[in-house]
Amino acid sequence: MNAIEKLNKKNNEGKFICIGLDTDTNKLPACVKDKANPVLEFNKAIIEKCSAYAAAYKLNFAFYERDGYKGLQTLEETIALIPDDILIIADAKRGDIGNTSKMYAEAILEKMNFDSITINPYMGNDSIEPFIKNPDKLVFILALTSNAGASDFEKQKLEDGTYLYQLVIDKVNEWNTKNNCGIVFGATKSEELHQNMERIGQLPVLLPGVGAQGGSLEDVVKTFREYKRKKFLINVSRGIIYKSGKSDFAEAAFKEIVSLNDSAGHIFNE
Amino acid sequence: MNAIEKLNKKNNEGKFICIGLDTDTNKLPACVKDKANPVLEFNKAIIEKCSAYAAAYKLNFAFYERDGYKGLQTLEETIALIPDDILIIADAKRGDIGNTSKMYAEAILEKMNFDSITINPYMGNDSIEPFIKNPDKLVFILALTSNAGASDFEKQKLEDGTYLYQLVIDKVNEWNTKNNCGIVFGATKSEELHQNMERIGQLPVLLPGVGAQGGSLEDVVKTFREYKRKKFLINVSRGIIYKSGKSDFAEAAFKEIVSLNDSAGHIFNE
Repeated sequence: MNAIEKLNKKNNEGKFICIGLDTDTNKLPACVKDKANPVLEFNKAIIEKCSAYAAAYKLNFAFYERDGYKGLQTLEETIALIPDDILIIADAKRGDIGNTSKMYAEAILEKMNFDSITINPYMGNDSIEPFIKNPDKLVFILALTSNAGASDFEKQKLEDGTYLYQLVIDKVNEWNTKNNCGIVFGATKSEELHQNMERIGQLPVLLPGVGAQGGSLEDVVKTFREYKRKKFLINVSRGIIYKSGKSDFAEAAFKEIVSLNDSAGHIFNE
Repeated sequence: MNAIEKLNKKNNEGKFICIGLDTDTNKLPACVKDKANPVLEFNKAIIEKCSAYAAAYKLNFAFYERDGYKGLQTLEETIALIPDDILIIADAKRGDIGNTSKMYAEAILEKMNFDSITINPYMGNDSIEPFIKNPDKLVFILALTSNAGASDFEKQKLEDGTYLYQLVIDKVNEWNTKNNCGIVFGATKSEELHQNMERIGQLPVLLPGVGAQGGSLEDVVKTFREYKRKKFLINVSRGIIYKSGKSDFAEAAFKEIVSLNDSAGHIFNE
């Protein structure tokens, strides 16, 4: 199953929640701290418990790189634990000149075998092209991000009146000749999401920012319902994996994803 | 010595060439291929031979990540070999929401102890802020990059007539309250460099793109001479480290950096 097939399968099962495995060594519950690899142990418990309900997993590279090469090893060991039919997103926000992007694409999409990756568009077409060569992968390009800094550049108005992030969406649509491009759109920006649904068209959308960052699951799902389209993933990281913070962390994460999924499904089918 | 002191020291010695250790396992000379760690062996030989002339070293993360966690280990082992008074730049082009950028900053600037890092500005202020907290580090933020794709977004004209990359330069100047911010400006864009020298002001400038990408060392150095200012680094990667491709690779790299340095110094002091 390729990346887009995995996304469609889960969406068709009514699953829209992506679990962000932003596993912070400083926030681990006491019960895993004495294990040989506490982060791996934590991830393993979450994956075993939650995979029946997860639409996707997103691994934020920063949290693994912080532990140097050992962290990267944990990242590789973690993705090996995720069932084959669930989309795995490398939240790496890469993007560089062509020959360097080619290396990143090889590293992350081929060798590590992630299904999907997040990409920063700033450097333009040749920085993105190596990532979208393989039609079996799914590449989420940053459009309007969930953070306050999105106003600095992404929301700058261009000469013709469009915003920079809107031009990014237009370019992604133009580059999407293999149907393997998507965008990242902050769930905290629900008004802009609503205004841009036609512009986004059929591009898959990854929406971070629900939970700790204040985005509304309800607003996002209602927008997609209104436009009668799926192919979206709402990412929740801290709100799921640190729901309890104690030895019942996996059980608490499970209850939370079931509840979020139920809410999303309920709103979508209202 | 902090990052900016290292840069100033080398510049004052007439050294402006940054060696890009973009070490590609597919391009290694036969003589290192049978070593336990060919990439490390290759880097070690370059560093031992060239350090008396290098103004800085830039390590492109893509080339190390491609070998997974083992590559990251090689990266850490490589930077341990570089003399203390030479600036070491992590060419990582990171940038994410605040709490994630904080993790990257900890990983790369603190734990790995790089002096400097390249950052992608797309996500705005809070994505950059964690990197520029420490006044002893030097953060190069992408302005106008050396690649063709720079036209797609960086060279978009904003409502007020400035280009996006110019707004980035203005913002970097505004954020540079600790004198630890610089910019990346492609050496292939020498005309735009010349036009923007006043806008850039006293920000240190990292200039990739000389050599394989076609940028002109002469044009760049002449521009800085005209404005009577130093604090710049011209990065050359492939043009130095693969100069010979055979067992004399380190000797050939040495001759090339001596020659490039001489050219730069000669032009600067003309």
